[in-house]
Amino acid sequence: MSLCYQTHFNPVAVKPSASRRPPKRFLVCNLSVPTSAALEADPAPIFTSVKTFAPATVANLGPGYDCFGCAVDGLGDHVTLRVDSATRAGQISISEIDGFGDSGTRLSKDPLWNCAGIAAIAVMKKLGVRSVGLSISLQKGLPLGSGLGSSAASAAAAAVAVNEIFGRRLGVQELVEAGLESEAKVSGYHADNIAPAIMGGFVLIRSYEPLKLCPLKFPDDKDLFFVLVNPEFEAPTKKMRAVLPKEVGMSHIVWNCSQALALGAAVIQGDVRELGSAMSSDRIVEPRRAPLIPGFESVKRAALEAGAYGCTISGAGPTAVAVVDDEELGLAVGAKMVEAFMKDGSLMASAVVKRLDRVGARLVSSVV
Amino acid sequence: MSLCYQTHFNPVAVKPSASRRPPKRFLVCNLSVPTSAALEADPAPIFTSVKTFAPATVANLGPGYDCFGCAVDGLGDHVTLRVDSATRAGQISISEIDGFGDSGTRLSKDPLWNCAGIAAIAVMKKLGVRSVGLSISLQKGLPLGSGLGSSAASAAAAAVAVNEIFGRRLGVQELVEAGLESEAKVSGYHADNIAPAIMGGFVLIRSYEPLKLCPLKFPDDKDLFFVLVNPEFEAPTKKMRAVLPKEVGMSHIVWNCSQALALGAAVIQGDVRELGSAMSSDRIVEPRRAPLIPGFESVKRAALEAGAYGCTISGAGPTAVAVVDDEELGLAVGAKMVEAFMKDGSLMASAVVKRLDRVGARLVSSVV
Repeated sequence: MSLCYQTHFNPVAVKPSASRRPPKRFLVCNLSVPTSAALEADPAPIFTSVKTFAPATVANLGPGYDCFGCAVDGLGDHVTLRVDSATRAGQISISEIDGFGDSGTRLSKDPLWNCAGIAAIAVMKKLGVRSVGLSISLQKGLPLGSGLGSSAASAAAAAVAVNEIFGRRLGVQELVEAGLESEAKVSGYHADNIAPAIMGGFVLIRSYEPLKLCPLKFPDDKDLFFVLVNPEFEAPTKKMRAVLPKEVGMSHIVWNCSQALALGAAVIQGDVRELGSAMSSDRIVEPRRAPLIPGFESVKRAALEAGAYGCTISGAGPTAVAVVDDEELGLAVGAKMVEAFMKDGSLMASAVVKRLDRVGARLVSSVV
Repeated sequence: MSLCYQTHFNPVAVKPSASRRPPKRFLVCNLSVPTSAALEADPAPIFTSVKTFAPATVANLGPGYDCFGCAVDGLGDHVTLRVDSATRAGQISISEIDGFGDSGTRLSKDPLWNCAGIAAIAVMKKLGVRSVGLSISLQKGLPLGSGLGSSAASAAAAAVAVNEIFGRRLGVQELVEAGLESEAKVSGYHADNIAPAIMGGFVLIRSYEPLKLCPLKFPDDKDLFFVLVNPEFEAPTKKMRAVLPKEVGMSHIVWNCSQALALGAAVIQGDVRELGSAMSSDRIVEPRRAPLIPGFESVKRAALEAGAYGCTISGAGPTAVAVVDDEELGLAVGAKMVEAFMKDGSLMASAVVKRLDRVGARLVSSVV
């Protein structure tokens, strides 16, 4: 059974001023569904187990550094969550971690130090779960530290699993808040992976205090493919942050704001050419980080020469992401990028071509 | 006779890569119509006189500082341009300047030091005019130094007038380039007033080298009104520039890019609420400039309390601009803003409510 989580994303009317009709919204901000008051404390589970999936995400997209991200289809993590009498009531355990590479040995099974565990605990707290113990089995489909939102995918799948097993009582906003607790502990207080991992599509984080999430809808009738090229190289995350400038001069700020403005317009319009052009044009973050990824400059050049509309670093890297509007072209672009990583970075790399994920974290199956 | 200049704005195909169909474009960048090669040198005029109009413009719109602007309907400058045997062939003279306040005495009639004159000369040069002398009569409808693109309106009206009198041989890109020569001399090398003054609507300046202009189309079926409140106060332009920070920290950059991204999306979607919210949220420029405009903080607060979706400084000020989607509401908002300028800034002010201008500089009448 596949149950689309999308139902949660229906626009929720945000209190319009009394005198005016609420306008049709596209930036549905403050998605919070005010469910908390209606929640009974300590709810009973409606399933004995659920399986969920959450997609990989591409954060930053150039000038959208630390505020913008999107989900990609067909890559991600699965969580199986079970009501578990062997786990103390109100608590969670992690029974198993397997999947991509050595994820199983590198990730902690202590739920307080595992991104899926932290997110699950945060959701249980919001729901007021006290009488039921749960156990998580995490199946990693994403490499760690690749710049594809690996920790966010685990957190999103776990948060949604807990919510589903108790009858889907929380709204999107609460789930993102729960996931953000996990991200804050594991990879930094930023929502540009966890928000699209939960909500799907493109999501802009307009503010953190309060958390204001704005999905930007890419038109259904337009095609958008991401060419994701992951080299066998672990980006030194600390260095990736440390290399950022403390302060930036006005000319670069004006430039990046201009590209960000174009990026927002291009997403709504479904203009992949301009989306790519804007994504490729960051003058603040990418120029500092690119030199830390061997061969990246050549990889980007190869992508553009092969016909991609744009190319940048996915998240903090090392994955390089290019955009195209045609799958076959994407495969050709990916091959050239892999070649360039080897030629100029001496790195083995693999390429996949994936569509935009428009759904986000979702229930895959459930057992009553 | 009224002749809409809009015909020039039809999308001009930008060389698509050979293997793919050109996508439908909204960001029609590099509008340049490659007319120069086809131009005969020293063309003959097709009219003896023309009258043109160019609209006022609101530059910056908060996070779009120095790269974004739009045109407002029903406010602007007129130029009457005549073939004039008393003016030396290939040259231009300014016969008259009248209109708003003391514009007539404050503006130079030397065409080399007048924004209309400089733009007209630049267009004549591009056209290769050598055998005809022209004279300009400029009618200012805009106050000087108000933040409403007064110099750009004069330059745009003059540039379009010269182009029209010789049979409209230049495209939009060339006209903006000509206007930019004028802006560079008179108020600084920025195109965020001159581009929308010539092109109408919202225009994003993506780059200067080369000049890449991207019109962002606000939907035809949506209403957008600007409440423009101009206080009796001349903003000290030099101070307005001098007060800008030399460097800015990353958190403010991320914030402003996020708002710019939302602004671009809101314009394309015609979402006035989010447009206003983004426009209101600049944390880099407005906070530095606002204290130089007596009462501005109160004026902004009054606008928002009265129901405006957003409010900021128009251009370098002192005009305050608020946005609404209803004309009547706009009048109420304007009244509150005027009141606040008096109460907290001790400044007399006047308010107008104007629609978005979607046409730009245009021919109003012509005599053969």
